[in-house]
Amino acid sequence: MELKIKILKWSAGIPVAMMNKKTAEKIGIHIKDKISIKTISNYPKETSTIIDIIEGVVKENEIAVSSELNEVLKAKTGQKVEINLAIAPKSLVFIKNKLNEKQLSQKQINEIIKDIVNNSLSEAEIALFISAMYKQGMSFKETIYLIKAILKSGKKFKSKSKFVADKHSIGGIPGNRTTPLVVSICAAGGLVMPKTSSRAITSAAGTVDVIETIAPIEFSPKDLKKIIQKTNACLVWGGSLGMVPADSKIIKIEKILKIDPEAQLLASIMSKKLSMGAKYILIDIPYGKGAKVTKSKALKLKGKFEQLGKYFHKKLKCVLTDGSHPIGRGIGPALELIDIIKILKVEEERPLDLEKKSLFLAGEIFEMTKKAKKGKGFEMAKEILCSGKAFEKFKEIIKAQGGSLKKIKYAKFKKNIISKRSGRIYEIDNKKINSLARIAGCPVDKSSGVYLHHNVKDKVKKAEKILTIYSESKTRLNQAIRFYNSQHPIKIK
Amino acid sequence: MELKIKILKWSAGIPVAMMNKKTAEKIGIHIKDKISIKTISNYPKETSTIIDIIEGVVKENEIAVSSELNEVLKAKTGQKVEINLAIAPKSLVFIKNKLNEKQLSQKQINEIIKDIVNNSLSEAEIALFISAMYKQGMSFKETIYLIKAILKSGKKFKSKSKFVADKHSIGGIPGNRTTPLVVSICAAGGLVMPKTSSRAITSAAGTVDVIETIAPIEFSPKDLKKIIQKTNACLVWGGSLGMVPADSKIIKIEKILKIDPEAQLLASIMSKKLSMGAKYILIDIPYGKGAKVTKSKALKLKGKFEQLGKYFHKKLKCVLTDGSHPIGRGIGPALELIDIIKILKVEEERPLDLEKKSLFLAGEIFEMTKKAKKGKGFEMAKEILCSGKAFEKFKEIIKAQGGSLKKIKYAKFKKNIISKRSGRIYEIDNKKINSLARIAGCPVDKSSGVYLHHNVKDKVKKAEKILTIYSESKTRLNQAIRFYNSQHPIKIK
Repeated sequence: MELKIKILKWSAGIPVAMMNKKTAEKIGIHIKDKISIKTISNYPKETSTIIDIIEGVVKENEIAVSSELNEVLKAKTGQKVEINLAIAPKSLVFIKNKLNEKQLSQKQINEIIKDIVNNSLSEAEIALFISAMYKQGMSFKETIYLIKAILKSGKKFKSKSKFVADKHSIGGIPGNRTTPLVVSICAAGGLVMPKTSSRAITSAAGTVDVIETIAPIEFSPKDLKKIIQKTNACLVWGGSLGMVPADSKIIKIEKILKIDPEAQLLASIMSKKLSMGAKYILIDIPYGKGAKVTKSKALKLKGKFEQLGKYFHKKLKCVLTDGSHPIGRGIGPALELIDIIKILKVEEERPLDLEKKSLFLAGEIFEMTKKAKKGKGFEMAKEILCSGKAFEKFKEIIKAQGGSLKKIKYAKFKKNIISKRSGRIYEIDNKKINSLARIAGCPVDKSSGVYLHHNVKDKVKKAEKILTIYSESKTRLNQAIRFYNSQHPIKIK
Repeated sequence: MELKIKILKWSAGIPVAMMNKKTAEKIGIHIKDKISIKTISNYPKETSTIIDIIEGVVKENEIAVSSELNEVLKAKTGQKVEINLAIAPKSLVFIKNKLNEKQLSQKQINEIIKDIVNNSLSEAEIALFISAMYKQGMSFKETIYLIKAILKSGKKFKSKSKFVADKHSIGGIPGNRTTPLVVSICAAGGLVMPKTSSRAITSAAGTVDVIETIAPIEFSPKDLKKIIQKTNACLVWGGSLGMVPADSKIIKIEKILKIDPEAQLLASIMSKKLSMGAKYILIDIPYGKGAKVTKSKALKLKGKFEQLGKYFHKKLKCVLTDGSHPIGRGIGPALELIDIIKILKVEEERPLDLEKKSLFLAGEIFEMTKKAKKGKGFEMAKEILCSGKAFEKFKEIIKAQGGSLKKIKYAKFKKNIISKRSGRIYEIDNKKINSLARIAGCPVDKSSGVYLHHNVKDKVKKAEKILTIYSESKTRLNQAIRFYNSQHPIKIK
């Protein structure tokens, strides 16, 4: 059946369409059924969607599509589309096989990933897949299949340079915004770093959320190529590039479930690095109390990453770092950016822990790529930072992406939290600090978040400021204060 | 923040609301965030929902609610509601504990069920709970907790009669519509059978889908009481009564996932029976190839049901029956009803397999309740059926529910499938027949489905009709024919 698109400025968080009751009856669609929808044009775009039934808003010959659905269709009001009942996805059977401890084949994983990309699998079904991966684990073979399937479903970036390097942190540590620093330092040091990042999953901000405060982060692969040619680097969102579309969709559901299965973590990181053509890959695995992993889990993960690096013929190194407390002072997109700029400008008040970690990571990359001799990477990174070259490179990247450093601003509302006693801070709970920042509005409200006036091991006096909560909404600020008072994320004795 | 309800005639299959972008910004709501919504009235109703953001359709001071959300709020256009950010549900943590093989406490299961009932858990999160139950199983204790939690979240029906009996089939067998027959026979034989049923989960029709063809099946507990007082029985939908609201919501997601974990199956059945005050419970467990369970699984299930019966001080019996092929001729709401009426009228052309099984089940109940002596139940049931008393009782029930026998009609489109060879039918695949009927439009399109002209062990000649597909939509009919031709649900040799 042919229908006309009606664009409504409607964001539902998921791909969904609305049609009139009569239209639904004619096609034989019931609520919760899926349809396939295909634009009628020289280059038709096809995908699946679930259907809402509504009266008054759409006419009998119309179909309204959510902005998430129109990301695929790229249709305009009045454009014609062909609607059909979608066939039930075969891949649900494979997902259940996995849940029942069967090994999946490359073909089956390809099918699951394909159905995720074209919306044939619903949120609940993707949740089941995540649960199966989480619960059963995936074998080394399956993880490779998953990486290949994700790569197959997307696009690849190719570079002629021998020096394409990439870094990744498995995340979960509040602050810890090393990426913009490492990318600026390494690119200033002669490497090519086409860095794509994701948005925050369970934390207060991802690199992309931070960069978005001052610059666009969504580009077409064509525009991205120009940026990289100009600056040898970028700091962009992987999701918009269509490099690994399956990954973005899985991450969306992982966010709701607050689950991040190991195989998906491995596949997500590896597929991103491989799609960007990285030849050198450095993986930072923070471990410890309140981190995503314990030390023994970190060592296992390191083993798996290195195995994958070997399989895909890449030079890959894992470093284990202390993840037991936040790194840097700001938690939240704008607040983290402020930290970064302080470091790039080598200001006196800069957070030294974040600087040191960034220099260490950049140094490792310089040594891997043989830009620096063994043991001399840190020094090289420090020189580049202190010379101002890293800051120049950062500004260059932001400018190439169409941004500007002028835009950083603080949130409308704030509340200083003061210490009720004198003593030494012996614990800052990563998860609670992340939750606090999220309640305040992170990562969506860029200026919201938490600023730590002190870090672990610092001495504080009674009535001294220990942190400040920033928020764009009074409701959220009050909720964050209540959370702080009931959860005590910072412990002093 | 106070907003005004706008009713849109909008069915989304899930509770969801729409608001203007500016309103969302004011409250600090982001897409995929949940809000709590509470009517402002003397008897306020409160629930949670996810939010779509839309422009043009709702004004700044308005909120549009899907019909699924308004089932709870029962609000009218213009009515004021109070909106707040919803606090993240604690129960997600418990669900993950379960996934990680931890035992759940009564308190934790109560919390999960409460959050399911008030919409605090999203589809993806409920999917995770189902996956955890499916994968980890639930201990006997946990199953009891689950039953108690489901009962606690709903209402209870009380009867003074000593003879409140109930029956249940674990389902999955196409046709097999014994319930209306057993209820009519038993109630005509002096028992009280307040039968609540559910809609189809994975099959072509549930008892409620069948009865809905000719009578309303949704009642308030008050109206239901009147029906039972008048007829000693009913054939209604449990979902609308609010007896076990958690169960209905879990089943909705199970439908999407096509998963039915054992603990949820046990809890779903037991909580329904207990909420209706049953003192005698008969459970039919069909087993065999193509049934939900194998014989050994059926025996295990029987053991668990009997344990639960003992725990709750009920007289409970399980019977194991042959579930390796469809029972009766019609598959689909109206087609199954036609079978039932033929049996009630003792017509010559009636499906004898369905009759025999129904008499067997009714006989067992007569013996359990001591209405018949041991070994004499079947006879008693047969007498009641052949005397026409069961048909009278059935008509009485339908009339008391506001229905009428006149309404049964065949679907608009049909297609006869003929045999390509002579031989004997040696297999009819339950799952494929169910799928065929569902593709044809079951259970939503009442008249759609499959009519089997023959059953297993029958001889057929080449070019003889073996089944007829009925559908209300040509698209669905064609899709069903394609499915039949590619899947061969009936095997002849």
